[in-house]
Amino acid sequence: MDESTLIERLVAIGWKGSRAVLVGPGDDAAVLRGGLVISTDMMVEGVHFDFDWIAPAEVGFRAGAAALSDMAAMGARPGALLVSMAVSGDPAMCEELQRGLRRAGDRVAAPIVGGDVSRSPGPAVVDVVAVGRARAPVLRSGAEPGEDVWVSGELGGAGAAVAAWSAGGRPAPAARDRFAAPPDRVPLGVALAGRNLARAMIDVSDGLVTDARRIARASGVELRLRQALLPLDPGAGGDLKVALEGGEDYELMFTAPPGTRTRILELGQEMTVRVTRIGSVESGAGVVLEDREGRRIDPGHGGYDHFAAPGGGQAP
Amino acid sequence: MDESTLIERLVAIGWKGSRAVLVGPGDDAAVLRGGLVISTDMMVEGVHFDFDWIAPAEVGFRAGAAALSDMAAMGARPGALLVSMAVSGDPAMCEELQRGLRRAGDRVAAPIVGGDVSRSPGPAVVDVVAVGRARAPVLRSGAEPGEDVWVSGELGGAGAAVAAWSAGGRPAPAARDRFAAPPDRVPLGVALAGRNLARAMIDVSDGLVTDARRIARASGVELRLRQALLPLDPGAGGDLKVALEGGEDYELMFTAPPGTRTRILELGQEMTVRVTRIGSVESGAGVVLEDREGRRIDPGHGGYDHFAAPGGGQAP
Repeated sequence: MDESTLIERLVAIGWKGSRAVLVGPGDDAAVLRGGLVISTDMMVEGVHFDFDWIAPAEVGFRAGAAALSDMAAMGARPGALLVSMAVSGDPAMCEELQRGLRRAGDRVAAPIVGGDVSRSPGPAVVDVVAVGRARAPVLRSGAEPGEDVWVSGELGGAGAAVAAWSAGGRPAPAARDRFAAPPDRVPLGVALAGRNLARAMIDVSDGLVTDARRIARASGVELRLRQALLPLDPGAGGDLKVALEGGEDYELMFTAPPGTRTRILELGQEMTVRVTRIGSVESGAGVVLEDREGRRIDPGHGGYDHFAAPGGGQAP
Repeated sequence: MDESTLIERLVAIGWKGSRAVLVGPGDDAAVLRGGLVISTDMMVEGVHFDFDWIAPAEVGFRAGAAALSDMAAMGARPGALLVSMAVSGDPAMCEELQRGLRRAGDRVAAPIVGGDVSRSPGPAVVDVVAVGRARAPVLRSGAEPGEDVWVSGELGGAGAAVAAWSAGGRPAPAARDRFAAPPDRVPLGVALAGRNLARAMIDVSDGLVTDARRIARASGVELRLRQALLPLDPGAGGDLKVALEGGEDYELMFTAPPGTRTRILELGQEMTVRVTRIGSVESGAGVVLEDREGRRIDPGHGGYDHFAAPGGGQAP
């Protein structure tokens, strides 16, 4: 069973609709009546990170940034974080994790209001809950043919770091930084939602192609991405594959009507965030990648699957 | 470092106050402005449960019931659950966990609106987030001298099951059931809050004495408990120690003015939940236990400490 099949099954078991819930499972976060947005994001030592790669405070920061990235992708303003931690050995590690998480929360003024802590006989586990509010949350399902596809920031840096560590090497400092300290895209996401610019939005956590497929599927459209337009992170060393499949970028991918191009570019300048038009929304299904000559190329499997390769090695 | 010291340190690192937060860390759940109540509860294989003890669906049910118990203790009406799971091996285990969680959510009409799933190279971890609403949440800090101390249900059954398993034996069926299927005290907690009967409330998750100490500390009072009044679970086999220290009961302990005794007993009858007056709130600090002759006896250390005994064996 692959991961997306498993998630579909879990949703089918757990979800039956509720008048108190505006958006159920299947988007970056759930939305309750009243505009409350909530999501949870778990990081497991040996799966999502390794303490040989980054320090405990960096793990905490990363876990917080990842959870807050889901708020950004909904266009939600975060209000609070909660964290559950299981650690083996020294409880002082919890304090370091918490310090890092606090720093991530401080970027968006979200305090840590609760949590749980446990000893673990195995790997460290950090599960972060983010809670926020959105008047008009942006879903994955809003893309329409004719719109542009945009991405914030640059792709592949974090994935390149993971690839280097997994191969037993050391990543370039720029790639390591990209992994250890994901960007804060909350201001951009909130502005894109508040100014009604983004029609569909997702955070690029599992790889550009995988996350593009999610928008395509939820919206019933095709996303056509152009290789020549992809903003590669300098840390990715020009590796297209890692930019397409690496994941861990925590950038925002969104769709918007062509008439909003100038406003989106101006918003990027205002926020000093690079925003790049990387393709278009078409009638159809799935993700198509075009090379520099307009030929279709295989977009790759796209992203890490927790359950396709049981017993596999370290991976994002 | 013991667990409560660690939690105090984590709170000091993570919490700095926020206008958007009415109740921060340190109670059964946090309360955000607007009356949203939220908490998270993590269960780790080999620490909180073992698959030799109960089946995956029972673990899911238990994890959900434990998270919802925090809602009950605040007098909050649950609205939704989220769950993060990390499992080794068969992803079908996730489906069983989810089925159990769904059953716990169904008891209070709280659907599972989101979550996360990951492979784990170590023990299974289930972290459940409960979200609810309370107009007037009941805190641990509201107890006043002169009030009665009450507890719902019966104590020690789940703790007796854990003690039996940990000793390599098999618990009595009644004790096993008590561990596998914690009671739903949400209706009682909501009614105690809504009718303004409970002035301080907590769920008995870490042991009666430990949780009584938390009310005493938060309220700046002494809780005087009378051994002769404690409602022992038949599954506890008359073991006072397991009733006082065993934890895992997920019953409600609350304080209320003596003038409300009749109304509380009638409420218990209405809800077919046993409610028992077990002591009184006094000026002072800490927890005092009186035996049948009114002599003070040692209430014990009270509850499991995740970090006092690193490397220790299975424990609740």
